[in-house]
Amino acid sequence: MAIDYLNRLDNLLANSEADLVAFVPGENMVYFTGLHFHLSERPILGLYNAQGLSFIIPELEVAKLEARPELEARRFLWTDAAGYEAAFSQAVAALLPAGATCAMDGQTLRLFEWLALERAGVTPADARDIGELFLNLRARKAPEEIANMQRAIDISEAALKATMAWARPGMTERQIADRLGAEMLSRGSHGHAFLLVLTGEKSGLPHGNTADRVWGEDEFLLIDFGARYADYPADITRTFCYGQPSPQMRAMYQAVYEANKAAREYARPGVACEAVDRVARAVIEKAGFGEYFIHRLGHGLGLSVHELPNIVEGNMQELQPGMVFTIEPGVYIPGVGGVRIEDNAVVTEDGLKVLTSYKREL
Amino acid sequence: MAIDYLNRLDNLLANSEADLVAFVPGENMVYFTGLHFHLSERPILGLYNAQGLSFIIPELEVAKLEARPELEARRFLWTDAAGYEAAFSQAVAALLPAGATCAMDGQTLRLFEWLALERAGVTPADARDIGELFLNLRARKAPEEIANMQRAIDISEAALKATMAWARPGMTERQIADRLGAEMLSRGSHGHAFLLVLTGEKSGLPHGNTADRVWGEDEFLLIDFGARYADYPADITRTFCYGQPSPQMRAMYQAVYEANKAAREYARPGVACEAVDRVARAVIEKAGFGEYFIHRLGHGLGLSVHELPNIVEGNMQELQPGMVFTIEPGVYIPGVGGVRIEDNAVVTEDGLKVLTSYKREL
Repeated sequence: MAIDYLNRLDNLLANSEADLVAFVPGENMVYFTGLHFHLSERPILGLYNAQGLSFIIPELEVAKLEARPELEARRFLWTDAAGYEAAFSQAVAALLPAGATCAMDGQTLRLFEWLALERAGVTPADARDIGELFLNLRARKAPEEIANMQRAIDISEAALKATMAWARPGMTERQIADRLGAEMLSRGSHGHAFLLVLTGEKSGLPHGNTADRVWGEDEFLLIDFGARYADYPADITRTFCYGQPSPQMRAMYQAVYEANKAAREYARPGVACEAVDRVARAVIEKAGFGEYFIHRLGHGLGLSVHELPNIVEGNMQELQPGMVFTIEPGVYIPGVGGVRIEDNAVVTEDGLKVLTSYKREL
Repeated sequence: MAIDYLNRLDNLLANSEADLVAFVPGENMVYFTGLHFHLSERPILGLYNAQGLSFIIPELEVAKLEARPELEARRFLWTDAAGYEAAFSQAVAALLPAGATCAMDGQTLRLFEWLALERAGVTPADARDIGELFLNLRARKAPEEIANMQRAIDISEAALKATMAWARPGMTERQIADRLGAEMLSRGSHGHAFLLVLTGEKSGLPHGNTADRVWGEDEFLLIDFGARYADYPADITRTFCYGQPSPQMRAMYQAVYEANKAAREYARPGVACEAVDRVARAVIEKAGFGEYFIHRLGHGLGLSVHELPNIVEGNMQELQPGMVFTIEPGVYIPGVGGVRIEDNAVVTEDGLKVLTSYKREL
């Protein structure tokens, strides 16, 4: 891969307006260093300042650094037997002279890691949370990132097609989820990013849990899922009904369908995120379901399933070319069920390219 | 389910020696409330004090609380549009009078959530990290927890058996991992807890990543994996070699095999965790591979794949009946490869019951 990680880190440090930036395993570590570690109770901190890249790292993980000599990473090692306090102290002493400022990703750095930094000498006055900056720097995607997401979407849609050719009322949520998971794996998904299957009135819980409930005739089946390819996810929702949906269910579906369409047609560079949300929300309100659309219209999509930009009321940020986000209006009526239609799209120089193409009609 | 969550919470609060305990979605939320939420950029905080259970929670998640009326949970609601600051302020004003102390799980609570609590009025002086207490209270398992883990182990071992009857040198790590994942799903695993397949010299990276490397004849194949059943994981490792392992590879394997056996025979109630580690380590040192056994012998296993007790030098904590932990000695030689044999076991009233039974011989 030709990604220039040190350039990404330089950009991060410059934008942080701090003397050092700190981050933990997960998407930021992958984006800024290409390194995959597990985020566990064993702390691993990436630290970047004018002297370059350093790691507070357990000895048993150090082989991954040795495999990346071009990063020229300095190491503050610790072992299970000795614990990590000394490594934190040495790193802070070497990299953060008194008064130097330390910028961290507050969305992922955990309290125990912050307390260890504090014990090592970082004062709250010199610390800042730049979680949003990390996400902003990741919001405009490079072509290879978009290509990976398109691949994850293609795998997801083919897997959903195969699953829905097989799925029938009378099956449980779990059965349908397991089949869809297997269909994604067999098409090259690396695990999966997300997989939620809800039926009947449970589809009215936007973040309900897949369980053993049986999908009944005339009921909604809501599937929110996505494959993962080369670290990048898809995030797609479709809602189905076999049999005879009630007039209310049809009206809910139609409102969500029109809202999704309106947002896809409206989004383009220079438009404020909140305006995209409003366009979709107005359709649902006009249909009389406004009080049942209880979440934002969408979110950025990248290494994380939820990232920036936030497509929500109050976010005046303008869409820019390269941003990838979801469009996912929904209507959830307690005791009845829910409908959500979720697409993924990338902002282009002069409009929007929708990356998903699975049939949207009921 | 007959779990008395409010009793668990009372016990947590009493042991915390604080006026209020706070926790976020994940294993602690499941253990102490039975509630499954996603840990996302949308903060959800469970708060428990003498007045009972409260939640800072986004409106779109509240249906899950409504489904659990027996928790009698008070709600401090927020919406995507309004943001969460007001909900934090209201909760702190209502539940934490000046000088009241707030105990948090520092292993999972994130910096941005702590900063939100601080802005709402919690002072660092009144805050404490009780991450270890949460884990200690979860260390001795109830019978139904052990039964779930046994089920996860049985699924895992049957899936590994089916996979190894099929796997051959010439396949890639990813192919073998995908097959094993599918075999677990088809046997009732809920997703999986962990799935790592490493071949050849890559098996020498204890936390390497599964990729497209081809498993060669005469090479090690290391599989570290586990199914999940009703929230509970298995965590098993076996190392294979088809063809002719070198004399060095045989010696590595034999040392790890004997170390695993020695620990299984030694562990019982009242023995210090570090003594179990030492018994296994002594075997590997005697075989001349001491410098290549670079991690602790094992870790507790429960809702989290890594929890307490820590089977490591320096941990004088004594094993107690009901504790479930891994025994996983390993030898990793750079450029050659690695061997790990990992079992799961529960401490009984008078000894140790090993829950795993997959063949350990090379």
